[in-house]
Amino acid sequence: MSLLIVGTVAFDKIETPAGKTDAILGGAGTYIGIASSYFYKKINLISVVGEDFPDQYTTLLEDHKINTAGIKKVVGGKTFFWEGKYHTNMNQRDTISTELNVLANFDPIVPDAYQDCDFLMLGNLDPSVQIKVLNQLKKRPKLVVMDTMNFWMDLMLEKLLETIKRVDVLSINEDEARQLSGEHSLVLAARKILTMGPKYLIIKKGEHGALLFDKSENCFFAPALPLENVFDPTGAGDTFAGGFIGHLAKTNDLSFDNMKSAVLYGSALASLSVEKFGTDKIAFLSKEDINKRIESFQKLIHSNLSII
Amino acid sequence: MSLLIVGTVAFDKIETPAGKTDAILGGAGTYIGIASSYFYKKINLISVVGEDFPDQYTTLLEDHKINTAGIKKVVGGKTFFWEGKYHTNMNQRDTISTELNVLANFDPIVPDAYQDCDFLMLGNLDPSVQIKVLNQLKKRPKLVVMDTMNFWMDLMLEKLLETIKRVDVLSINEDEARQLSGEHSLVLAARKILTMGPKYLIIKKGEHGALLFDKSENCFFAPALPLENVFDPTGAGDTFAGGFIGHLAKTNDLSFDNMKSAVLYGSALASLSVEKFGTDKIAFLSKEDINKRIESFQKLIHSNLSII
Repeated sequence: MSLLIVGTVAFDKIETPAGKTDAILGGAGTYIGIASSYFYKKINLISVVGEDFPDQYTTLLEDHKINTAGIKKVVGGKTFFWEGKYHTNMNQRDTISTELNVLANFDPIVPDAYQDCDFLMLGNLDPSVQIKVLNQLKKRPKLVVMDTMNFWMDLMLEKLLETIKRVDVLSINEDEARQLSGEHSLVLAARKILTMGPKYLIIKKGEHGALLFDKSENCFFAPALPLENVFDPTGAGDTFAGGFIGHLAKTNDLSFDNMKSAVLYGSALASLSVEKFGTDKIAFLSKEDINKRIESFQKLIHSNLSII
Repeated sequence: MSLLIVGTVAFDKIETPAGKTDAILGGAGTYIGIASSYFYKKINLISVVGEDFPDQYTTLLEDHKINTAGIKKVVGGKTFFWEGKYHTNMNQRDTISTELNVLANFDPIVPDAYQDCDFLMLGNLDPSVQIKVLNQLKKRPKLVVMDTMNFWMDLMLEKLLETIKRVDVLSINEDEARQLSGEHSLVLAARKILTMGPKYLIIKKGEHGALLFDKSENCFFAPALPLENVFDPTGAGDTFAGGFIGHLAKTNDLSFDNMKSAVLYGSALASLSVEKFGTDKIAFLSKEDINKRIESFQKLIHSNLSII
């Protein structure tokens, strides 16, 4: 039994109102892998990097018990690079530069050693890459979670819908839920998206929390913790996904009740991640950090109101 | 012991993506009064209307046990009129027309019969009008709650700060909290605003819920219920304030714990209010409607996660 993650491993150059970085370790696969490593220890990662990808970053991933054998290093190639600048409100950002580099021809190969996969996390990627991974698995995983973004809705809607149809949990943000469904109300959006294939829908609302819906009209809301300082929102959604699937893989319990816990863990990890740049915080957490954050979430919403 | 509300009683003409209305009953005093009436029965209202204000609206307020003796009817005057159009996201709106009419010269008089006031709700109004009411009270109320908006921050900041200094609870939205404090982080914004006088700060986040802060760095978050259909957000903030102060007046308990319950009741009332136009829903609630909504809130955030 293992958790398979497919996602980018990249260089990010980030500017936020709190400061800026050089090109540092980033990518959905990186954030998902690190976040899930706090819950589960048999993690396989599929990705692609260039020859410029430093060993220290590979070591950092391996230190988190992430199997990096599935990260293809393209000789003479350059690692995917993204440069972005966040607005004051940190909810919006401008992409300054995107260099796909080795990602442009990414043709994922699932190593034999990775076939023993019960939990599959498809990080945000070209949906035709995501589906190639699904197609190579000889045994359908117990749970397939997929993250995507508006970019693929704009450019490859048909392929995206084909992929969405085959996953169990879809994770998108609120604007994307509205775009995908054509509904403004998130309740109506969720109802519509849950007819497209997934059994569960997560709608990420950034600093406003996250919603989990199932097909039986159950709905759960995890708040986001109001933070004193947000340094860098990059990777928060991926970190959320990592915490979510990591907790599910650890507990091997797919009840709605346990999915709620998974959403809380995902939210806790994401709220920690944004407190430093890049992976600077998320890569160096203790169990106690995570538990304390969960306690803060619980305290934030706790009330003694009982209806008389 | 009584609850005194100062706020506009007005005509609103509203257009939202869900439809539009003629000029209907509106105003902060109206929404606050009706919402608080579900909790508390000794409510006095101070406001001003024109000769055009129909008796049926006065009757509607009186049916909710609101004492309307303090609503001055100006002979030959016209009632305050607001016309607005909401965007698709319902979080933004354009004001099409504002006719202050009798509100322009509103000089509030606190009737002797209203002096027995333990709870004072200052609805959003010119802060010099709000402070005039405070100044006329012979005995300082147990609790003064004040609502305001960015308009007064832009135009009358000094007078606004003078008024804020004298209240116990300030209720504003997140943009206003940022504007008033100059801080983007709501945690930092709250800390700064709580040095300006109030003991408690409520930050309303519309469809994203509401936050309550005190001076001891306690923070409580009440989510908003994801709704299938939002017809009209007009008056949601005032309805929230009415539910909040109504519950506090009823229970006569100013602990932080009971304030949390008050925030939940305010949120429940606000989420009901937006499901029909104007006061069409909020004016005709049962105790059961309110309790069911509170249950929905509790279900929305309930999880069995306990940290191992």
